[in-house]
Amino acid sequence: MRAVVLLSGGLDSYTAAAIAKAEGFSLFALTIHYGQRHAREVDAARAVARALGVERHLELEVDLRPIGGSSLTSDAAVPHGRNLDAPGIPSTYVPARNTIFLSLALGWAEVVGAHDLVIGVNALDYSGYPDCRPEFVAAFERLATLATRAGIDGARFRVHTPLIALSKAEIVRRGLELGLDYGLTHSCYDPGPDGRPCGTCDSCVLRARGFDEAGVPDPVLLR
Amino acid sequence: MRAVVLLSGGLDSYTAAAIAKAEGFSLFALTIHYGQRHAREVDAARAVARALGVERHLELEVDLRPIGGSSLTSDAAVPHGRNLDAPGIPSTYVPARNTIFLSLALGWAEVVGAHDLVIGVNALDYSGYPDCRPEFVAAFERLATLATRAGIDGARFRVHTPLIALSKAEIVRRGLELGLDYGLTHSCYDPGPDGRPCGTCDSCVLRARGFDEAGVPDPVLLR
Repeated sequence: MRAVVLLSGGLDSYTAAAIAKAEGFSLFALTIHYGQRHAREVDAARAVARALGVERHLELEVDLRPIGGSSLTSDAAVPHGRNLDAPGIPSTYVPARNTIFLSLALGWAEVVGAHDLVIGVNALDYSGYPDCRPEFVAAFERLATLATRAGIDGARFRVHTPLIALSKAEIVRRGLELGLDYGLTHSCYDPGPDGRPCGTCDSCVLRARGFDEAGVPDPVLLR
Repeated sequence: MRAVVLLSGGLDSYTAAAIAKAEGFSLFALTIHYGQRHAREVDAARAVARALGVERHLELEVDLRPIGGSSLTSDAAVPHGRNLDAPGIPSTYVPARNTIFLSLALGWAEVVGAHDLVIGVNALDYSGYPDCRPEFVAAFERLATLATRAGIDGARFRVHTPLIALSKAEIVRRGLELGLDYGLTHSCYDPGPDGRPCGTCDSCVLRARGFDEAGVPDPVLLR
């Protein structure tokens, strides 16, 4: 059975894809180049797709910079050393990003005959983004069926979020059980010119916390 | 109050935008270049945006051809002289197009502070596309609120579909009442090299039927 999986090159989407593969899905990986600052992520997505042995890896150009509204898609500075428990939505939130990405995944799924979408969103150790919440995912699942041939043919779309209830440490442990090489991944929002993670953006801090609590070193930092 | 309106350059989106303007919305028009065959539509979108006096007109490049699955985004032939009452979804259906377009509109709406989206879908004289049905629109409206800051701040998104229950003739009559110049628009799925409408694709046939039933000539055909 085919599944379209959103693959960013980060730790979460790699793990979500691997869990779907372990469940028996044949993977159709979709990476969106949305003009994010960390193009390093795109190289990681290719490496991860190869490691997963995906059936196909489609890369789409959807530049969201003309829309802006995020420090990831504009010239605004990415925050460093932020208090992750501070209320509110951080500037790295990209307006409607997961909705846009899932919509594109939905389009491709119709073409390849998949009724399953996989996304590595996480509602525990995340950054307060509204489009990572279970109620968002449930609403998209319902929409997906109504939006497509499925809604007319009586089929049903499922959106799989295998990480949604896991802590970052649990995600890392699950991935290591599955034999994943996290050295291939890239999570940093604001890498240096050499592509190395900054260590102080939200994404780096959450990742470090995950490896720390899992009691294993992050292979990316051992290089 | 601001509204983001999807503007294709066709008759329907022009009319939907004009109705929203007449209701007092300040228009933020969004045109998506999705690799459709009829690039002529894009020139029409610019002319229509000018005629509407929109606050801003944003054009985004989102090439859906790598996804394919439609005669509008692949080399498959657009059907001519098709029986519009034939059951099934025609080859001009672009998988998840309205979901993708509304998602992009949603992202921009968040940035410009709009909570209203306008789309010219029509559930009567249409081509059997699943993403033109009222239940799809209602599901997207619910999703939009959950997907964004609105869902956290207690605001609510509305998706306006002023044409959804109108026949093509009623759309034409409403637009003429509003003083619209339909000579600016372009509806054909498969125009000739000179940009002139073919007259036999679904979109041309539906348009002709609309002007015919409204008892007025189509200005595009008078040139």
